Amino acid sequence: MAQKDKAEEMAGQTKEISVSEFFEKNRHLLGYDNKIKALLIIVKEGVDNALDAAEEARIMPEIFVKVEELEREKYKIVIKDNGPGIVKANIPKIFGTLLYGSKFHRLRQSRGQQGLGVSCAVMYSQLTTGESTEVISSTGDGKTHKYRIKIDVKNNKPEILSDEVVDMDTWHGVQIMFICEGIYREHKQSILEYLKETAISNPFAKITFDSPNGKFDFSAGIDKLPDEPSEIKPHLYGVEVGILSRMLKATKARTLQSFLTSEFSRVGSTAANEIITKAGIVGEDGSPDGRLSPKRLTDEQMVSIVKAVKEVKLSRPPTDCLSPLGSDSVEKGLKKELNPDFITAVSRSPTVYRGWPFQIEVGLAYGGSIESAKFMRFANRVPLLYQQGDCAMTKAMATIDWRRYGLQGDKLPEGPIAIFIHMASVWVPFTSESKEAVASYPIILKEVKLALQEATRKLSLYLSGMRKAQYQQERMKIFERYAGDTATALAELTGRDADEIQVMINEIAKTVHEEALKTENGKEEEAPPVEVEGGKENGEEDEEAE
Amino acid sequence: MAQKDKAEEMAGQTKEISVSEFFEKNRHLLGYDNKIKALLIIVKEGVDNALDAAEEARIMPEIFVKVEELEREKYKIVIKDNGPGIVKANIPKIFGTLLYGSKFHRLRQSRGQQGLGVSCAVMYSQLTTGESTEVISSTGDGKTHKYRIKIDVKNNKPEILSDEVVDMDTWHGVQIMFICEGIYREHKQSILEYLKETAISNPFAKITFDSPNGKFDFSAGIDKLPDEPSEIKPHLYGVEVGILSRMLKATKARTLQSFLTSEFSRVGSTAANEIITKAGIVGEDGSPDGRLSPKRLTDEQMVSIVKAVKEVKLSRPPTDCLSPLGSDSVEKGLKKELNPDFITAVSRSPTVYRGWPFQIEVGLAYGGSIESAKFMRFANRVPLLYQQGDCAMTKAMATIDWRRYGLQGDKLPEGPIAIFIHMASVWVPFTSESKEAVASYPIILKEVKLALQEATRKLSLYLSGMRKAQYQQERMKIFERYAGDTATALAELTGRDADEIQVMINEIAKTVHEEALKTENGKEEEAPPVEVEGGKENGEEDEEAE
Repeated sequence: MAQKDKAEEMAGQTKEISVSEFFEKNRHLLGYDNKIKALLIIVKEGVDNALDAAEEARIMPEIFVKVEELEREKYKIVIKDNGPGIVKANIPKIFGTLLYGSKFHRLRQSRGQQGLGVSCAVMYSQLTTGESTEVISSTGDGKTHKYRIKIDVKNNKPEILSDEVVDMDTWHGVQIMFICEGIYREHKQSILEYLKETAISNPFAKITFDSPNGKFDFSAGIDKLPDEPSEIKPHLYGVEVGILSRMLKATKARTLQSFLTSEFSRVGSTAANEIITKAGIVGEDGSPDGRLSPKRLTDEQMVSIVKAVKEVKLSRPPTDCLSPLGSDSVEKGLKKELNPDFITAVSRSPTVYRGWPFQIEVGLAYGGSIESAKFMRFANRVPLLYQQGDCAMTKAMATIDWRRYGLQGDKLPEGPIAIFIHMASVWVPFTSESKEAVASYPIILKEVKLALQEATRKLSLYLSGMRKAQYQQERMKIFERYAGDTATALAELTGRDADEIQVMINEIAKTVHEEALKTENGKEEEAPPVEVEGGKENGEEDEEAE
Repeated sequence: MAQKDKAEEMAGQTKEISVSEFFEKNRHLLGYDNKIKALLIIVKEGVDNALDAAEEARIMPEIFVKVEELEREKYKIVIKDNGPGIVKANIPKIFGTLLYGSKFHRLRQSRGQQGLGVSCAVMYSQLTTGESTEVISSTGDGKTHKYRIKIDVKNNKPEILSDEVVDMDTWHGVQIMFICEGIYREHKQSILEYLKETAISNPFAKITFDSPNGKFDFSAGIDKLPDEPSEIKPHLYGVEVGILSRMLKATKARTLQSFLTSEFSRVGSTAANEIITKAGIVGEDGSPDGRLSPKRLTDEQMVSIVKAVKEVKLSRPPTDCLSPLGSDSVEKGLKKELNPDFITAVSRSPTVYRGWPFQIEVGLAYGGSIESAKFMRFANRVPLLYQQGDCAMTKAMATIDWRRYGLQGDKLPEGPIAIFIHMASVWVPFTSESKEAVASYPIILKEVKLALQEATRKLSLYLSGMRKAQYQQERMKIFERYAGDTATALAELTGRDADEIQVMINEIAKTVHEEALKTENGKEEEAPPVEVEGGKENGEEDEEAE
C-alpha cells in the first residue's frame, strides 16, 4: 500500500495555479527580465492601448508619455490619452485581471490582442516597488473616476485601494500612472526608438514624450485616421476539429447548412452543400442532408467536415478586417525619417494562415543619410524592438541572396540600407507573450520573402543604373585626362588653335558618353526575377519541419 | 456624449479569457506549431511526468512509450509507467485543467514545474482530432480507474466522457493514450533523440520505445535512484516587494522577527535583527522592534526590508533541493554513447538567481566516434532539443574564444567535439511555455561560461599534447625517410654493412624522439586560464542590458 500512500501524499500537494501566479513567477515570458526593457514594455502597453482605443472611437490620437526618475532604478511612468475612456465598472477588471479584454475574441486587426499587457504592467509595478497603479478615466460625461488598483495575485482579481470622483472638466480618455523598478536608457531598443518608429507607422498620431533627458514631440504627418477595420467571421480553412466542436455547441443556427453559411465567412449555400456531401453527412434516405441539428453531430462527422473543407474551393476571407499602411505611407514615413537617395515599397495582397487573414508590407530605402543597415519590424503598426533573430521577418531576410541583387552581406544586407517590414493581421502569432517576434509559420516566411524580393529587385535596378553611370563617368574622366595632350598634338599637326580643338574634343566626348548611356539603358535588365512559388489553393500550409 | 456611447459599446465586448482559450489560440507558445514537434512534445510531457513521479515515490522507473500511425498525419501515443499512480479524484483535474499541478508552488528540483504540459497535450489532441484522452491509473490498491477526458476550453475545466473501473491486477502507475495530429520523423530533433538523451541524463531509468520503425530499448545503466531533492523555503535575496507582501499576509508567524526566521531559508535571529535594524523598523521607543505583527507592516516598511536585505550578509540557500548528475555520471553517460578519445566533466558549485538555487554541469568529449560537433542541453535532466540559438547555454558557448583553446569555430566549436550542459534548479527560467530554451539571466550565462572554460582548458591540454606527439612523429618520419640514404652513404664511407648501420640509426632516432617528448611534456603548459570574475556577494545580479 506504499504506492497508495505516496499517491495520496502527492495528491495533497496538487492545486490550481492562478494565471497571475504563473506570470508573476514567469515574468521573463512577458519581457520583464531586464530593467531597461521593463520601462519600454510598460510604455508600449499603455501607448498601444491608447492608439487602439482612439482609432476604434475614430478620434485623432494625442498621447502624452512621461518617464520620471524617482530614485535610483525607480521610475514613475504616466501615459495619458484623449480616447473614449473606460466605463467605471470596467476599470478595475481591465487593470486588475490578467487575461481580460475586448480584443481576444474578435477577428479584426488591433495592436493589443491578449488582454495581458496592461494588467501585467500593474503586476510588475506592485511586484518590484509594492506600489499600486493609479488609473484616471472619463468617458466625457463630466464624471472622472480615479482608482488605485493592485492585483490579488492568488485569485487573479483586482484589489481596489481607492475609488473617487475627481474634477477634470470635459476631458475624456485614460491616464495611467505606474511606479516601478527600471533603468532608463536611450539606445536602439529604447522608449525613444519605440516612439520614433511608432510615429512612422502611425503618422496620424500626435505623441509627446517628456523623458528624463528632455521633451520630444512627434507631430502628426497625416490628418486622417486609417480606415476602420471590420470584424470578420472565422474562415473554414483555419478551423480545427476542436474549435468546430465548440462552435457547433454554441451556435443558434438550427441546421448544419445554416450553421456553415452563417457562422463562417465566404461560405454560400453551394459551398455548404458541397461540404456536407463530401463529408458524407446523409439523412435517413441516404442522400446528403444539411437539415441535421448542429448539436447532434457526432465527433466522426465533425472530423469528416474538417477533412471535406480541404477539398472544397472557398473564396479567401474578406480583408477589410485588416488595416495595412499602404505603400504610399510606408514610403512617406521612411522618406521623412531617413531622407534616402532611393526608396521603394511593396504591399502584398492579403492572404491567410490558420484561417486568419494577414498582409505583408515592405519598405526599402537606400543611401542618403542612412549610414549603416537598419531593420525595422512592425506588427499591426507596433514596432518590434527585441528578439530580432527569433522573428519570421528576420528569418525571411536571411533567405535572400543579397549578393545577387548587387548588395553586400551574408544573411542580412550590409551598407546604407533600411528595411521596413510590417505584418498586419487579425491575430499576429507572436513567439512569446512579450510580443517581440513573429512565429515562423511557413506562409508568413514566404510572404515576407516575396515582398522583400520584389522590393530588392527595384533597388537592384537602381544600383545597377548607379554603377553604369559611375562607369561612364570614369570613362569620361580618363578621356578628359588625355584630351589636353591630344588637343596640343592635333594643334601642332593641323596648325589650328589648341583651345578650339579642345572644345571640339569635349563635344565629341559628351556625345559619345550620352549615346553610351542611352544604349546601356535600352538593354534588357538582368536583375533576378521574383520567385513566385505555386501558391496552395486550399489554404493548406506546409507545416513540416522547423 | 459620443465618447460615452463608444466607451459603453467597447465595454460590452470586454470579457475574461480562460487560460485554455489563451493557449488554444496561442498553441505555438507551447511548441505545437509544427506537426513533427507536436508528437515529440506529447511524449516528452508524458515521460517527464512519469520520471518525476517514480523518482518522488522512490521507484526505479520503467517506462513504455508507443507511437503508432493510425492514418496519414494521425497518431496514437501511449505512455505507461510503473509509478505511484494518481488518486482517482485528481485524475480529471490533472489532465483536464491548464495550470494545475503539484510542482509549481514548491521549491525543489523536478522536471515538470508549470502544471501546463500534460493538459495541453490533451487540448492539442482534442483540437486536432476531436478525440478525448484516455487515462488509466492505479495506486496499487487493486482498483484501476479508466477515464476518457476532454477539456472544457471556455471554462478551463475537465469534461469527463467516461469513468470506469478496469482490471489490471497489481499494476500501479499511469497509462495515458493520446490521439492527435502529427508527423513522425527520426532526425536530430526527434522522439528517438529525446529518449536517447533522456537515457544519458537519467541512467537509472529503463525506457522501451515501440516506434513506427521498430523497437528500441534503453536499459538502466545504474541501479540506484539519485538522492531525493528536499523542498526548501524561499531565500530572501530573491524576494521582491510584491511577494513579500503576499507572504506577510499569509503567514502564521506572530512577529516580524519570527516571520523572517521561519518563512525563509538561512535567516537566523541575528540576521533577522540586522534586517529589522537596517530597515529602520522601530517600536514606540524608537529602537528596532521585531515584535511588530507581520499583518501590520506598511508598504513603505516592506520596501525598506527588501532594501535592507541587500545590505545584510546571508548564507546561500541550502542546495539539497538540487539533484545534479555529478561529473562521474556525466562522463559515464558520454562515454557510453559516444566512445570518445578524450572526456572530461565539470560540476560547478550551486549558486542562486532571483533567490532560486541552481547548478551548472558541463561534459566535454572529443574524438573517437564523434564525427561532427554535437551540443546537448539539459534542464533538470530533461533534454532540450529546440530553440538552441535562443538558449542561455548556447549564448554562453558563443562567448568562448575557441581558437584560444586550440579549437576551430567562431561562435560554436567545430570538429569532433561533443558538449553536454546541464542546469539543475528548483525553477528553470524557460524562454517560453514550450520549455525549449533557458532565459539568459546574467548569472546563468556566467556560470555556464565558467564551467565551459574549465572543461575546455582540460581539452586544450590534451589537444596540445596530441599536437606535440604529432609533431614528433612527423619529425621522426622525415628522419626515417633520409635514414636509408644516410645508411648507404655511411656504409660506403666506413665499409660496414648498410643494414647494420640502418639499425643503429633507427636506435638513435628512437632515443632522440623519446627525449624530445620527455622535454616537451615537462614544459609549463600555456593553456589559457579560467577567467574568474569577481562574484557578487549579496546575490544581486547585473540585470542591465540584453
